[in-house]
Amino acid sequence: MFEAKFQSFDVEDIPRAQIAARVAALRAELSRRGLDGFVVPRADRQQDEYLPPSEERLKWLTGFSGSAGVAVVLTERAALFVDGRYTLQARDQVDTALFSIEHLIDSPPHVWLEGNLKPGAKLGYDSWLHTVGGAEKLAKACAAAGAELEPAEPNPIDAIWTDRPLPPLGPVVPHDLRFAGESAASKLARMQAEIAKAKADALVVSDAQAVAWAFNIRGADVAHTPLPLAFAIVPREGRPSLYVDGRKLGNAARPALQEYLDVRDEAALAEDLAALGAAHKKVRLDEATAADALANIVTESGGKILRGADPIALMKAVKNAVEIDGARAAHRRDGAAMARFLAWLDREAPGGKLTEIDAVAALETFRRETGVLKDVSFPTIAGAGPNGAIVHYRVTRSSNRRIAPGELFLVDSGAQYEDGTTDITRTIAVGTPTPEMREHFTRVLKGHIALASAVFPDGTTGAQLDSFARQYLWAAGLDFDHGTGHGVGSYLSVHEGPARISKLGTTALKRGMILSNEPGYYKPGAYGIRVENLVLVVEAPAPTSAEKPLNAFETLTLAPIDVRLIEPRLLTAEEVAWVDAYHARVAETLGPLVNADTRAWVDGATGALRAPKL
Amino acid sequence: MFEAKFQSFDVEDIPRAQIAARVAALRAELSRRGLDGFVVPRADRQQDEYLPPSEERLKWLTGFSGSAGVAVVLTERAALFVDGRYTLQARDQVDTALFSIEHLIDSPPHVWLEGNLKPGAKLGYDSWLHTVGGAEKLAKACAAAGAELEPAEPNPIDAIWTDRPLPPLGPVVPHDLRFAGESAASKLARMQAEIAKAKADALVVSDAQAVAWAFNIRGADVAHTPLPLAFAIVPREGRPSLYVDGRKLGNAARPALQEYLDVRDEAALAEDLAALGAAHKKVRLDEATAADALANIVTESGGKILRGADPIALMKAVKNAVEIDGARAAHRRDGAAMARFLAWLDREAPGGKLTEIDAVAALETFRRETGVLKDVSFPTIAGAGPNGAIVHYRVTRSSNRRIAPGELFLVDSGAQYEDGTTDITRTIAVGTPTPEMREHFTRVLKGHIALASAVFPDGTTGAQLDSFARQYLWAAGLDFDHGTGHGVGSYLSVHEGPARISKLGTTALKRGMILSNEPGYYKPGAYGIRVENLVLVVEAPAPTSAEKPLNAFETLTLAPIDVRLIEPRLLTAEEVAWVDAYHARVAETLGPLVNADTRAWVDGATGALRAPKL
Repeated sequence: MFEAKFQSFDVEDIPRAQIAARVAALRAELSRRGLDGFVVPRADRQQDEYLPPSEERLKWLTGFSGSAGVAVVLTERAALFVDGRYTLQARDQVDTALFSIEHLIDSPPHVWLEGNLKPGAKLGYDSWLHTVGGAEKLAKACAAAGAELEPAEPNPIDAIWTDRPLPPLGPVVPHDLRFAGESAASKLARMQAEIAKAKADALVVSDAQAVAWAFNIRGADVAHTPLPLAFAIVPREGRPSLYVDGRKLGNAARPALQEYLDVRDEAALAEDLAALGAAHKKVRLDEATAADALANIVTESGGKILRGADPIALMKAVKNAVEIDGARAAHRRDGAAMARFLAWLDREAPGGKLTEIDAVAALETFRRETGVLKDVSFPTIAGAGPNGAIVHYRVTRSSNRRIAPGELFLVDSGAQYEDGTTDITRTIAVGTPTPEMREHFTRVLKGHIALASAVFPDGTTGAQLDSFARQYLWAAGLDFDHGTGHGVGSYLSVHEGPARISKLGTTALKRGMILSNEPGYYKPGAYGIRVENLVLVVEAPAPTSAEKPLNAFETLTLAPIDVRLIEPRLLTAEEVAWVDAYHARVAETLGPLVNADTRAWVDGATGALRAPKL
Repeated sequence: MFEAKFQSFDVEDIPRAQIAARVAALRAELSRRGLDGFVVPRADRQQDEYLPPSEERLKWLTGFSGSAGVAVVLTERAALFVDGRYTLQARDQVDTALFSIEHLIDSPPHVWLEGNLKPGAKLGYDSWLHTVGGAEKLAKACAAAGAELEPAEPNPIDAIWTDRPLPPLGPVVPHDLRFAGESAASKLARMQAEIAKAKADALVVSDAQAVAWAFNIRGADVAHTPLPLAFAIVPREGRPSLYVDGRKLGNAARPALQEYLDVRDEAALAEDLAALGAAHKKVRLDEATAADALANIVTESGGKILRGADPIALMKAVKNAVEIDGARAAHRRDGAAMARFLAWLDREAPGGKLTEIDAVAALETFRRETGVLKDVSFPTIAGAGPNGAIVHYRVTRSSNRRIAPGELFLVDSGAQYEDGTTDITRTIAVGTPTPEMREHFTRVLKGHIALASAVFPDGTTGAQLDSFARQYLWAAGLDFDHGTGHGVGSYLSVHEGPARISKLGTTALKRGMILSNEPGYYKPGAYGIRVENLVLVVEAPAPTSAEKPLNAFETLTLAPIDVRLIEPRLLTAEEVAWVDAYHARVAETLGPLVNADTRAWVDGATGALRAPKL
């Protein structure tokens, strides 16, 4: 069978006795330092989505392996805060005699702390692992309880975690202009114009994605995203500084970088910030993503922090013509691999022998066989039957389920290619779907089409479009409990800010942005449905009466949507035309890129709706 | 002809020499007090929408009579800040040699102050006329400029405005239980539960609308809204205090009130707040609406302010069964008056002799002739041709325009009845409309219908629904530059928070809320279109598959929509059915309430779309 190389299905279970010993050791260490508690977020210094093993302090201390959470260890009690999707997993992985499991949203740490900190207590935190905004919330909670928040450096966990892995040393490589589409010099000029506009003397680039974009480099320090863990300082004029472990720089990257920036050791970051502070400079940083430590160094040495959204985030989100062409190419290639996978699945699944892991491995293999796959853009979500209803499901050897006839199979996956990052979800009927499954799938699809076909004036935000994708579910008393779309990077993070399509999406959608369009419906214990394509914001043809510049979405993702799950009687003529036009494009584009067997399957899967064979 | 009694068409022009003398007198007064500037908002102590004459300081000082604005007078320069709708009017009314006209949104006072205040300057403000949040913004701007913000009491303008009118003494009357639907005692229990939940010792009720609702009273201190200007303090337990000029209380109101509250003189408000402060109490107030002075008195005397949205606003917004029945009755009555007006207009307007003022007077007269009209709920907007494109147009003797054949006529009006407040806009074709007018009207109507027919789960906000009303305009490159809907009070303010249907509407819509549904389109210099009905949030019938409680809108407003402006080919079958069902309901409901002539007109105006006569 096939093999997955970029994704593991094993979960490391840490024995409870070991966890108890670690918590005891932490308490002893805190006591030595005169602290009454410590906060342990799942975070690294750059708030990365995927952490290097050296930063997995929360997992090491609690056993909890989810992708979001924070623990607070006080002298007499400790709590682990996780959101709704991880409540069950946390109870399973964590010794609840040691940690109470709290709801991250309903009973967040700052509220819990107000009730549990004693007056006069000193709560430690690692100011490198909390954002400026996050640290402020903690400080407020401490003040409300009559306690104090204190930086604890070095991190007390590092003092007791004796076999802590070394930080990663992934090589930094140039991101070629034929993929990046804009020289670092040109980007630097644009950044410096933004810095001048903000009346700042310098910008701290604290987000690794922003560093990668700004200097046209990519790295290999974390899973699934080609990030170099590195910081930068960009002055209003002159050469920026890149703070990175020099061992990561190869023979190609270093000279190219040194043409226009100074490569500095990581340790020099604090020094240089302090120097800016001492010179009373105004330093801009994003309080939502920058480590509290960065701001503290500047202010404590006499400088001023100007808070504001990272200007690079918006520049990076708007793809240039080369990146857009790259995205289109990546989606053709990825669509061919998806078509091969869907054809294979249609052949094999009805036999009832395939498992979720088989499917993940096959899909990754087909993508690898393109010859240019760098990584999957996130661990594939492959949920058969009831597992499909778990929105952030990750198959493990113990959860692995056979894909049984009569069930729905949801596959959400993506690829990292140098020319573009992909993210696609298809829901497949194995055997004969029930009328209910078809009705629900069709309502999800109608929402997907409504968003894909939306025309909207310049300046419209994702929040203004989100409901278009929900309206047909609402009419049936249904909904889905996640946003409709997120931004996607260009050979960068598959989850990229600042734009998104959700209630909270207050950033205006600009031409060149790439976002996902992924409404869904989840029936707990039964099945999950999601239809996800990536879309590009483009100029819409303006009617003669138009008074405003108009935008629309071009769908980038190319792969058949399972017509066996569509109930055409629920579609309007326009919706049928949308499906048919999309499928015609899929067949025309992918046909020449796949072998004869797959091509025959694609042709069958993309026939016009309401055609006699349906 | 007819006469308007609740609305004037005269604009008082203050001679420029007088304005110059007033500004000079203010500067002299500021200098006497050691102040370098003073801020003059268009506001009273309760942030009311309509001001009593005694509070019209901005108009007195600048000559500007618009409904929103703020002036800043410094030693050497002065500025008047108004929003986009008032830029032209301000240039017309105000001596620009004395005041530069600034854009309230693009260049707001706090930004202007940062650039214009000198270091060390002292800027005065009347802390009764600025909200807590507003004063904070001013203080921040002063700090950024190295200046200081200082309370200036009594208001320096009052010291020089020698013929300032006395504050109003409108009688306070009980709002009968047959209209209010809930006793003041029951409301008090609910308020006190909210105060306990917020862990406060007392609530400052700073909004006159909230005072009126809480104690089932109405007043007559301002135009168009039956408000008593009065404050209240509600303790967590025990009797509330109402702060009101005792002369306003008649023989019916005083004893009823004194059964469960203490009537206190207005001057006692500061005393009582200071006493709460001295007792170290926690006092809840809404920083968005409460005067800065209120918060200052509490904190300066040792108390603590708990900030948070006024809990009364949400209670008041959710109408009870009696208020809902009242609203339905008010809308039947108002619909009959509107039908009489529309029939009259259809008879008279084609002759080309009617003016906007004639129409306003006729409509008010027909409403008055119901015998129960208390006031119009706002000055009627009656815009013929290009005047219809001015969103907040108010006809004056000098702007008054003849309603000419071939033009559109937009009428936005409302009534105050004891059982309910109405607000309705109709756009009428006088003579034959152009195909463009019909297309634009139909796109507005499609948006109106989309919102009116929306079905949405409990918890959905107005922001999530707003785009439904815009989508068909967007598709044509058009839009409208105002929210789609606002909350409406029950014999209270026609603009009532906290819910609204707009990008900024983050309050969840609850069953019992009444909002407007009023998309529009405005072609500057040509015509304006708006279709406005009030809608009530009601439970929607739940389909069998429903997993969530569902809500929908019931349209309350009953008056024909001009079918001569509808292009049926642009409507779907469902939209045609909506119009026909609405018109059938209008005809059936209003028919028995109007005379034979009007009834014949209503029957003609509400015939089914696509019927042969179209």
